[in-house]
Formats: sequence, C-alpha cells, structure tokens
Amino acid sequence: MSHPRPCRATAHSNIALVKYWGKREGDDPALNLPAVGSLSMTLDVLRSETVVAPAERDGFDLDGATIEGKPAAKVFAQLDRVWGLAGLHGERPACSVRSINHLPTAAGLASSASGFAALTIAAAGSFGVCEQLDGPTRARLSTWARMGSGSAARSVWGGFVRLDAGVRADGRDCVARQLCGADHWDLRLLVVHTARGAKQVGSTGGMESSRLTSPYYPAWVESSAADLDDAQAALEARQFEALGEVMEHSCFKMHACMLATRPPLMYWNGATLEVIRAVWSIRESGGPRGFVTSDAGPHVKVLCEAVHAPALAEQLRAVAGVHEVQVVAPGPDASLELL
Amino acid sequence: MSHPRPCRATAHSNIALVKYWGKREGDDPALNLPAVGSLSMTLDVLRSETVVAPAERDGFDLDGATIEGKPAAKVFAQLDRVWGLAGLHGERPACSVRSINHLPTAAGLASSASGFAALTIAAAGSFGVCEQLDGPTRARLSTWARMGSGSAARSVWGGFVRLDAGVRADGRDCVARQLCGADHWDLRLLVVHTARGAKQVGSTGGMESSRLTSPYYPAWVESSAADLDDAQAALEARQFEALGEVMEHSCFKMHACMLATRPPLMYWNGATLEVIRAVWSIRESGGPRGFVTSDAGPHVKVLCEAVHAPALAEQLRAVAGVHEVQVVAPGPDASLELL
Repeated sequence: MSHPRPCRATAHSNIALVKYWGKREGDDPALNLPAVGSLSMTLDVLRSETVVAPAERDGFDLDGATIEGKPAAKVFAQLDRVWGLAGLHGERPACSVRSINHLPTAAGLASSASGFAALTIAAAGSFGVCEQLDGPTRARLSTWARMGSGSAARSVWGGFVRLDAGVRADGRDCVARQLCGADHWDLRLLVVHTARGAKQVGSTGGMESSRLTSPYYPAWVESSAADLDDAQAALEARQFEALGEVMEHSCFKMHACMLATRPPLMYWNGATLEVIRAVWSIRESGGPRGFVTSDAGPHVKVLCEAVHAPALAEQLRAVAGVHEVQVVAPGPDASLELL
Repeated sequence: MSHPRPCRATAHSNIALVKYWGKREGDDPALNLPAVGSLSMTLDVLRSETVVAPAERDGFDLDGATIEGKPAAKVFAQLDRVWGLAGLHGERPACSVRSINHLPTAAGLASSASGFAALTIAAAGSFGVCEQLDGPTRARLSTWARMGSGSAARSVWGGFVRLDAGVRADGRDCVARQLCGADHWDLRLLVVHTARGAKQVGSTGGMESSRLTSPYYPAWVESSAADLDDAQAALEARQFEALGEVMEHSCFKMHACMLATRPPLMYWNGATLEVIRAVWSIRESGGPRGFVTSDAGPHVKVLCEAVHAPALAEQLRAVAGVHEVQVVAPGPDASLELL
C-alpha cells in the first residue's frame, strides 16, 4: 500500500477484577509482558474513539487539542510498531491521529487501555492489516496493543476477558481471550470518583519500583494464578459472592504490594478509604451488596448486580469526598470502521 | 509469704518503630512468642499506674470503674501467671487490682503494653518477687509481661527498646533490652488522633488471621530482621532520615500484610490517610520533617526531632478529621513502689 486509508476504531475501557501489576523480568522490554495474568470486565460507556488517516506529517490530537512531546511520541511509536509487526516495508507514511476519550484521562480509569486498543486497531485498519475483526485478528491485535499498554490487550474484547501472562519469551502466549460476552451476566460497575485531575505516580515506574524493592512482590506474582482461576470459575458459574471476594483480595494484595515498596506507593486518598468502608458497612448491614476494587489511582470501583446498582450508587454519592458515581455495564467488543 | 503486700507500679506505653505482628508458630501459645522482633520508643506521658493489694476476693477496677467478665479474667490470669512463674506454692491469695490508664484504652495506642507491664511489675512486687528493679529483674519481668501482652515486654524499659523474637522454644531469649535511655536523642512522637472510641478488630485475632491467610506473611516475617538492625544502627548513630525511612517501611509492610489477609484487615480510616499524606507533603515541601507510623488502629504517630514538634503538630491539627495531637517525648523505665 502507498497511503494509509482513513479508519476509525472504538475500544472500551476495562477494569481488572483480578489485577495486573508488574512486568515479566528478563524478556524483551519492548514486548511489555506482564508478570501476572489478569481478568477484566470491559465497560460500556467509557471508551476511546480514534481515527488514523493519511497526513502531510505525523500529528496527534486528543479531545480536540493538539498534543506534542512524550504523549505524542508514544502514539507515533505505536504506529511504528503496528507498521513493523504488520511486516510492511519502507518508511511508515505520516498519519494524523485524532482521539476522543469518553472518560477522564490518566486518573486511574484505564484511559490507556481503551486508548491504545483503539489506536492499534485503527492503525491496523489504516495500514491494510485487516478489514474486519474476526477472532484470530483480535487475538493478534491484542498482542500488539499490549506492547503499547498492558491493559490495552484486554480492551480489544467485550464482556469478560482473561489475559494470561504466558511463558514464551516471544510473548505469543500472552494474549487476551474473551471468557464470556457482555450479556453473560447482568453486573454493574459503579465508578466512584474520589478526586479530580491526574494521578501522581505513573503505573510503569511504579511497577518497576515494586519489582525491585517490595519484599512482597514474589508472593504477589506467585499467588495471582490461583486468583485468576477462582475468578474465572466464579464468573462462569455466576457466583457473585465468590467473584467479589477474590476481586477484593486481588485488589488489596496489589495495593499491599505497592505499600511495601520503597519508597511506598500510596495511590489512595482519605475518600478512597471512606468509600471502601461504606461499601463494606452497607454489605454487612444487609444493604445492597457490592465489592470494591481500585487501580493505580484514588477512585473506587464497586461491582454489584444490576438490580442493586441504583440504590448502592445513591448511598455512595452521600459519602464525603465523592464527586460522582457512574454506573457502567459490561461493554462490547472493540470495533473498526473504514471511513 | 502469706499475704500480698500493697504495691504500685507505673509503666509507660511504647510505640513500635519497627513493628510486631504475628506470633511464633509451633511453640507453646501460653508463652505468647512473637514471630518477629520489634524496636520501640517508650513514651513519657502515656502511662498506666496499677496497684495490687491483698483483698477478700479478686477484683479489678480500671479508671475507677469495676470491670468484670473477660477483661477482668485476663488480669487475674496474669496474676496467676506471675504467682506460678515466681515459683510460689499453694493457691494464689486474692488481690484487688486498681489501674489508671493515662491514655485512651484499646484504640491502637498500646494501652495493653503499659497496662500489662504495670500489672506484672505490681504483682511481682506484691508477691515478694522483687523490691527494686535492677537489670536482671527487669529482663525477667519483661518475659512475664510478654505472656500477658506482646508489646508489654518492651514497656518495662524506658527510652528505646529492642525485643528480639528469639529462637528458643522456652522463650527465654525473647526478651526486651534497652538500646539507649530516654536522654539519648531528643525526639518527639506526635500522637495524631483520627477517631474516638475503641477499634473494631483486636490484635490477637488479626495476627492469627494474617499468619493463616496472608500470602505476604512469610515475607513479612523474613524481611523484618533487617529492619530491626537498620533501625538500631540509625538510632545509635542518631540518623533521623534513616530511622524514619525504615520506620515507615516497617509500618507500611505490616499494614500491607494485614490488607492481604482474607478477609482483609483494614485498621485505617480516611483521616488516617489524609494525615499520612499531609506529613509527606509537608516533608516534601521543605517543612518540618516527620515520619509516620500506625498500629492496629486508625491513629497516626509521627516521629520528629524535638525542635520541629510544635510547628508540625500545629499543621497536623489543621487536617480534616484530626481530633487531637499529643506531643510525647521518650519516657522513663517502669517503676515499682512498695506502699
């Protein structure tokens, strides 16, 4: 091909019910291989839309604003990566990348998951790698997306997704697969916003710091495989309590591994803790049952059954320090549109 | 002896700079042997005063109120223990125990440390075990106090105290020793109260739960020995930053081990986290330098040099959710008075 064709991809954010923290040691860093597998729910409302189109020179704009410097360089590097992985020859043609994030950026709400998934799929479409996203194509694009951002590997699929860490040095077995579609189980995720603005410590540096200094890191990696299997079994059997319990354990274990890092990584604020306590207190007092999780940021995500979502959201809006509670359902596969 | 003689003991609370969490496995539970050593500062203002005297029948009153049930049973059991350990024959004579706690009870402020130390010393005096507290006597009473409450072993000494876990099955090498007296270093501990009332989960049950279910427990135990040595070296050389760093690490590692327990042990509330963040933020912005620690409760203790204590206390009083900030200096040895 001589010119990229204009393509738009939409990918939905996802939240890990079984957490990912830490990269595999000793393998090619460019492959961005995780040390532990993860299991996620793709989210229906929170999504990124990205158009890749031919241009005079590379350009990136996000939510209508031109972005330069390091964030733009990461985007162009992903275009280069897709170009190379697709086996295309010659110099990559210049592209314009226009992205819209229907979610807060860099606040621990996985904007990089949906962003890098959408970018990878749009670039693949634009470079003529694929016209439609069948299973094998999704699996391949998932590994490409992962090299841009670990959690992006999961956002190529809708519903409930498992990403195994794999053992191969070339990373071919580190691929996300859908366990169940979005209609498998009528769950909701309440996204409880406890702060505004971007988080203070990025994930990549934090993971590396945990691997090098947290005395709990080896046990974190070793114990996560059982969590994955337990969560998958609970998901497939629709056992809400069992899924919630392992989900909370995985979350607290990840934050505990971060806390034992030197210097400590503390992504929570006071409102984070008050929301967690409120969810537990409501659960223990016989109110609508929710289970908490939280990523590398201060927000809390609460998993509940759809029928309980409105009441639980209402109660959590009343917790001091809560700015907003969004109710999100399981979301669809990422999609590609040739423009 | 036929009758106990009236004796009063005063023991000061202590705060672990290197934390104790978990009991040694496989040894006699009655010996109450810790899985990890600890290093503490004894506190000058926070103390328990206990009088043991002959009586018609056993009785316990605390702060002027008669106490019955389980708390009283634990006190009488400690009297029995001291009687037995002293090698006294026949039935233990009945005693009245009157105790005053100059600190909040069961709120994660180590009232059991000063309480069981004072009780043990007063009982030993009362039963004629000792008339004065020389070094060997203190060491012996420290092991007796430990059987009532692990942290009580440290409160028999003033200043800065190290308690090694030891390896002997009979627990004779699990004994607290003073590293430096109260006048070694003009440090202050700010006790930042972030809640009122008693804590929700007792320490003993929590420790056992961590040992049985936290995947981080083995690494917690294994990594603590180095913390002890690092803290001792920093203490002896009066290196404030080094002591503060290992103190925070030990604290976060303990809370991380608790968080990874199933179900999770979360002793903090929102104000706890906001105080921790405030101490860090003041430190990073060039203000008075403090380092945080926190026990099995929501309060935060902040170590600082004496010269910075008033300004730091003032700033922490302004944090939302803080009820009170006490400024405490290194405290003296426990004492015994024959009445």
